[in-house]
Amino acid sequence: MGDKIQMIRSLLTVENPINDSAELLDWIRRRNLEVSVDVKQIPFSEMAGWHIDEDGCLRHDTGRFFSVQGIHVETDFGFVSEWDQPIIVQPEIGYLGILAKEFNGVLYFLMQAKIEPGNVNCVQISPTLQATKSNYTRVHNGKKPAYLDYFLNVSPENVLLDQLQSEQGARFLRKRNRNIIIKVDDDVEVLPDFRWMTIGQIKEFMHYDNLVNMDTRTVLSGIEYTDYLTPLSDLSCFSPFGKDLLDSAQKTDGVHTMSQLLSWLSGLKSRYDLFVSYKPIDRLKGWHRTEMEIANDSGKYFRVIGVQVCISNREVQSWNQPLVQPLQQGICAFIIKKIGGIYHFLVQAKLECGNNDIFELAPTVQCLTGNVFASRKKPPFTDYILNASKDHVLYDVLQSEEGGRFYREQNRNMIIEADGNFPLEVPEHYTWMTLNQINSFLRFNNYLNIQARSILSALKYN
Amino acid sequence: MGDKIQMIRSLLTVENPINDSAELLDWIRRRNLEVSVDVKQIPFSEMAGWHIDEDGCLRHDTGRFFSVQGIHVETDFGFVSEWDQPIIVQPEIGYLGILAKEFNGVLYFLMQAKIEPGNVNCVQISPTLQATKSNYTRVHNGKKPAYLDYFLNVSPENVLLDQLQSEQGARFLRKRNRNIIIKVDDDVEVLPDFRWMTIGQIKEFMHYDNLVNMDTRTVLSGIEYTDYLTPLSDLSCFSPFGKDLLDSAQKTDGVHTMSQLLSWLSGLKSRYDLFVSYKPIDRLKGWHRTEMEIANDSGKYFRVIGVQVCISNREVQSWNQPLVQPLQQGICAFIIKKIGGIYHFLVQAKLECGNNDIFELAPTVQCLTGNVFASRKKPPFTDYILNASKDHVLYDVLQSEEGGRFYREQNRNMIIEADGNFPLEVPEHYTWMTLNQINSFLRFNNYLNIQARSILSALKYN
Repeated sequence: MGDKIQMIRSLLTVENPINDSAELLDWIRRRNLEVSVDVKQIPFSEMAGWHIDEDGCLRHDTGRFFSVQGIHVETDFGFVSEWDQPIIVQPEIGYLGILAKEFNGVLYFLMQAKIEPGNVNCVQISPTLQATKSNYTRVHNGKKPAYLDYFLNVSPENVLLDQLQSEQGARFLRKRNRNIIIKVDDDVEVLPDFRWMTIGQIKEFMHYDNLVNMDTRTVLSGIEYTDYLTPLSDLSCFSPFGKDLLDSAQKTDGVHTMSQLLSWLSGLKSRYDLFVSYKPIDRLKGWHRTEMEIANDSGKYFRVIGVQVCISNREVQSWNQPLVQPLQQGICAFIIKKIGGIYHFLVQAKLECGNNDIFELAPTVQCLTGNVFASRKKPPFTDYILNASKDHVLYDVLQSEEGGRFYREQNRNMIIEADGNFPLEVPEHYTWMTLNQINSFLRFNNYLNIQARSILSALKYN
Repeated sequence: MGDKIQMIRSLLTVENPINDSAELLDWIRRRNLEVSVDVKQIPFSEMAGWHIDEDGCLRHDTGRFFSVQGIHVETDFGFVSEWDQPIIVQPEIGYLGILAKEFNGVLYFLMQAKIEPGNVNCVQISPTLQATKSNYTRVHNGKKPAYLDYFLNVSPENVLLDQLQSEQGARFLRKRNRNIIIKVDDDVEVLPDFRWMTIGQIKEFMHYDNLVNMDTRTVLSGIEYTDYLTPLSDLSCFSPFGKDLLDSAQKTDGVHTMSQLLSWLSGLKSRYDLFVSYKPIDRLKGWHRTEMEIANDSGKYFRVIGVQVCISNREVQSWNQPLVQPLQQGICAFIIKKIGGIYHFLVQAKLECGNNDIFELAPTVQCLTGNVFASRKKPPFTDYILNASKDHVLYDVLQSEEGGRFYREQNRNMIIEADGNFPLEVPEHYTWMTLNQINSFLRFNNYLNIQARSILSALKYN
């Protein structure tokens, strides 16, 4: 239990004696200069290792990794009652793993400068391990991902966090990853692309556009810092906002009790249907497939393209794969408000076609912008967020989605503090939660969506 | 908060001044005599309102209610890596609702003497409301289920329990129901087939074979009695075993912490795959469809039949429907053991093809008996349970599955107290949990399977 303070120290440590933040930023910058990533769109038929099956689906020749398939969606929730779309199918649960180790009483996390073909800025700060089951079990070439064995052989008492969490429900069909943090006591070899960082540093880096990748953000979002506080903890190093967050993270009951929140969600899941069935890509209504893309006839939403990737670095790597290219930017924002002196988050229950269980808990606002934005009635609270005065904007950063599947997709992540007049009454599929309640949903897996987790991970306590 | 004691009094009250237990038993007996249930097997082609589609699936002509379809299952968990089987598909979430009301400081539950065609003994004690979404939304004949409006119009503060819980994962494809208990303050008209009962009484009735139906058992299993205790609660009316259960229900940490248990389950779900795809009934390997049945070529497991149901009572009701007939009895048993003075339950992570999330938490032993039993290696702990000496058997009752879908299916439900020598070390997919930990999984929905919940509901505190 004397170990607990190591996590809190990591949260509050920004001056890292092992790796100074300026040095780390410089390291990423240098890696970006050293590396050349060439992504060229090519016809699907020229993608080595991939083929289009009789239904127009994109599949890897081994039947593994992932595929792009078509689905038909029906629901009685929202304005659109049915639609077709392509979706990424990746049924395996992969690892998003971070290795942690204590140095001088502070917990450090082994982070990777990882290149992904779809990254806007080729290198981002990534977990120690990102590996699909295909990667780490049936490895053909005998090339194991670095540090994998630490995760495969971990003993239960060294697991700091271990959750199954979902990815984008509008793009992936029920995809999940194992978000895991393990602590290691042995000496760990630090490979060239890896550095030890504190949580305080990583959170600092999350205040730069597109520097910390999605996988890092989701893993860190699951840590419940109140678990690491003891009655003796010295709170003087927390900022006033950090202390307010801790207060909220300790409140099991807020505007609503946990039972009421669970009942609210049970009610929504019972009231609204979501039916998803496979449908050949070539028969998707409103979509077309050419040699170069699978795209919506309207030119909106997203398209699927085939690319040839060539990464030149110490060694040259080249491969082909499909990527999903967004055709609009999006915005994801939480409104938070002090109610009875305690911060509450305005949480949305959002239905997305790839959700494992109909609804997931999403930020207050999560939508596409651009032409979609202009053509429709804006979702609730969007204007409030976009018109918030500067002193109410606590966070406003562009964050990337996973560059291994998405081509230069970035979304604006925001936290807005509501003013005193903001109404407590909210529409049916919105509710107020304390951070404690959000954390309870988080630990039971698959409740908070990736967009919500991305924003939560950026909350700073110092 | 002064209301809390009403639930505890209900739990401990067996002498019900409104309806004496002997009278209630007599009422069920009389209802059984008054009612005549005639279930006759008929050819599928003669089932009015149902048809067999081009794939051999049984479907209702409206496309609603439920269907019997074929699936192909692949998994790398367990001894059988792939198989085909028919399964019931019922994607709507229905209500299993109980209406509660306080009389003289005690909470009473409005229970129904309900007839189902598949019941071994036509009438069983059922929740106030059992209604599918088809029943209660798109009602053609304008005949609303009794008491439905109380549930549709309940206000959040009157909801005592509200959970989405799964049904048999080996027979239903991802079916769930909304288990809900609501409290009413108004006068409630008691219709002829309904009576007010205390929880103490219902639990007493669960010690009779096949008297309390599955739906009642699952709803009651979700109540966390420790939520209703206050520091001032008088525990003198609890039995020594009841006090031990309360102790276990208050222990957030046992042999394992909750984080370790969640990690154990994340690990299993990540390590093992479950792939389920639809397949035409007529192409299921090892199964055949005749005019009279869909059955396994081996004569084992279960078969699907079409029946004509005729219930004569105050009015005559007659309809046709498919039913699933088991060809073996089953056994479901929890082993419990005091570890460090606290009762722990030996919980199994069980993979079943219809599970919503690969594994659900199941009793220590859950298997078919009879010829299946004889032909294979018995699952772990089965011999221990069957050979337990009488003074270690805390519970041993035959309980029915849902008579609206299953034809006379009953399973032996048992609780066995392990002796001191019973090993703490258990195989990979078993673990020890306190009742508090089980209850935490329960409230977050879809973790405990119906067989586990059935046994938990029978735990007696007085």
